[in-house]
Amino acid sequence: MKHNFGAGPGILPHEVLKQAAAGVLDLNGIGLSILEISHRSAEFEAILDEAVKLVKELLEVPEGYSVLFLQGGASTQFALAPYNLLPEGGKAAYLETGVWANKAMKEAKFFGEVQVVASSKESNFTYIPKDFVIPADAAYFHITSNNTIYGTQSQSFPKSPVPVVCDMSSDIFSRKINVADFGLIYAGAQKNMGPAGTTLVIVKDDILGKSGRKIPAMFNYQVQIEGGSMYNTPPCFAIYVSMLTLNWLKSKGGVAAIEAENIAKAKVLYGEIDRNPLFKGVCAVEDRSHMNVCFVMENPEHEKPFLKLAEEKGIVGIKGHRSVGGFRASIYNALPITSVYVLIDAMQEFAEKNK
Amino acid sequence: MKHNFGAGPGILPHEVLKQAAAGVLDLNGIGLSILEISHRSAEFEAILDEAVKLVKELLEVPEGYSVLFLQGGASTQFALAPYNLLPEGGKAAYLETGVWANKAMKEAKFFGEVQVVASSKESNFTYIPKDFVIPADAAYFHITSNNTIYGTQSQSFPKSPVPVVCDMSSDIFSRKINVADFGLIYAGAQKNMGPAGTTLVIVKDDILGKSGRKIPAMFNYQVQIEGGSMYNTPPCFAIYVSMLTLNWLKSKGGVAAIEAENIAKAKVLYGEIDRNPLFKGVCAVEDRSHMNVCFVMENPEHEKPFLKLAEEKGIVGIKGHRSVGGFRASIYNALPITSVYVLIDAMQEFAEKNK
Repeated sequence: MKHNFGAGPGILPHEVLKQAAAGVLDLNGIGLSILEISHRSAEFEAILDEAVKLVKELLEVPEGYSVLFLQGGASTQFALAPYNLLPEGGKAAYLETGVWANKAMKEAKFFGEVQVVASSKESNFTYIPKDFVIPADAAYFHITSNNTIYGTQSQSFPKSPVPVVCDMSSDIFSRKINVADFGLIYAGAQKNMGPAGTTLVIVKDDILGKSGRKIPAMFNYQVQIEGGSMYNTPPCFAIYVSMLTLNWLKSKGGVAAIEAENIAKAKVLYGEIDRNPLFKGVCAVEDRSHMNVCFVMENPEHEKPFLKLAEEKGIVGIKGHRSVGGFRASIYNALPITSVYVLIDAMQEFAEKNK
Repeated sequence: MKHNFGAGPGILPHEVLKQAAAGVLDLNGIGLSILEISHRSAEFEAILDEAVKLVKELLEVPEGYSVLFLQGGASTQFALAPYNLLPEGGKAAYLETGVWANKAMKEAKFFGEVQVVASSKESNFTYIPKDFVIPADAAYFHITSNNTIYGTQSQSFPKSPVPVVCDMSSDIFSRKINVADFGLIYAGAQKNMGPAGTTLVIVKDDILGKSGRKIPAMFNYQVQIEGGSMYNTPPCFAIYVSMLTLNWLKSKGGVAAIEAENIAKAKVLYGEIDRNPLFKGVCAVEDRSHMNVCFVMENPEHEKPFLKLAEEKGIVGIKGHRSVGGFRASIYNALPITSVYVLIDAMQEFAEKNK
């Protein structure tokens, strides 16, 4: 048995995989695969409707917001956010918390001025800057809620005089959020929502149509809203599996219930990192992510043999990103706490052998 | 048993569906699903490499071309082609052969001037215009090789003084083409290549970098080439199933073999349409598509009962597009000729009953 701590595309619930495989062979007994039916068929329209309904229900999306399933990942949204929201000659404010925030800024510069309100770059992004002022003349303020590479996560969101745009790719559906605090939320599916291949966008309708830009159809949120995410053929299978995953989340008790589980998983794993003399965390304790737990070893020479031991126990995907090194254990929604205990056992066993 | 004549997402080979379902449960026995492995894993990199290799092999792609698997469908390419190829103040030439050509033109107008070299709009696109001149001062010439809605297909491609950009969404891999005749080929996967969710792009390297535009990363072919289709997380599953489908095509004898089958399927079906007094074709005989066979009934009141009869025989997806009416039987690569004979039998049975 594998314990999948991969950073993404990440672990999906076993029940969902079984349902998805069945749908590839024969969707709900219709005699056709989910891969070969029209997106305009009653069957697929019901899937998309259900997926949108589940997003609204699980995140308690208020009136006045639209929910879209698009393509191209968060990297495409890095460009679409300014394309739709930033007027010619306008300015957008960004919080620089890592590589993904950087990439989002880089794309925004194609469309206007980028003002960095604060950055933790000088410390290789080991913390989330907290003292900053969001300029009231910015078109929006952009933040990355969870920084997969560094293992930091915003535990709260600032009050903002302008719409908040948030990249929630790696922690959406992992904890309760107040959607009304945001103008635009986007997230690649491949952590907690489903497989790679679709991108969730939740946008407040009344922030659109103000930039004065002429925007090609596929890049225009308004066009996608009017088309109900079907201006063109959507990524049907990725949406199908997202629907199944969100349905699984609902059956588990929803976001509040999974948040409690995620906190429990993070607590035991960080507890072991802090307790075990061979290991140490890499970022500010108050900004520790409940999704990506990054740690290194006091003696870097221990890292290779520890990785080997972990692999022997079926633990996969814990190698840290090259820019941080060490280890990164991603403990997304679908990862059971039993897998976390397997990792902790490996850490304890290794410490015992290397006293 | 269903006979899937749907226009797309369309029929996929049964063997491919079985392999895809197996990969969703456990990819090649690694103990993880194709849906939950990193795109940077050795397993996925091998899949993407194989998919690119199969495209090059099956289409005999010459040196100097790059093969990309992107997202967003052909509709995104409608914008990316001019974004990458059309200089500010430049002009692009388009052949107007239907709704999809129209949509491509509409997106190009965001980037520059569009010159329509010829159009069959006045006849509701029932033929492919043939007498036209491609302006030598255009940045490129755009053509739609197969017009799904109307059932027309270009049986040859014009010599062009400028790079030819071709939307081959609905007939790529169905017949031999000479890639060297094109500067840019793009195609949504969901007809002959795989499921919805990925888009094939074949681009001649030396036509890039000449527009002088600054292009955001995800919209920039050069960036996607440098990233090997992995600038960001690709649509792993759609690429996986495309690889399986291309592998199936190779095992069938490749493009030349499938082209012979497609011609045979088209011949018997058009033969019945022309022979059966109750049915008639809708477009110019010399431009008839070998992928989408559009036809109506001499007596429009016969259409509902014929559709009912067809459905009773397990025939699905033959209702014509609302802008043409009647019927559209899509006979993509994966549709066996036995399904075509079932449709022909239904046509003959209906004619017999309604003499």
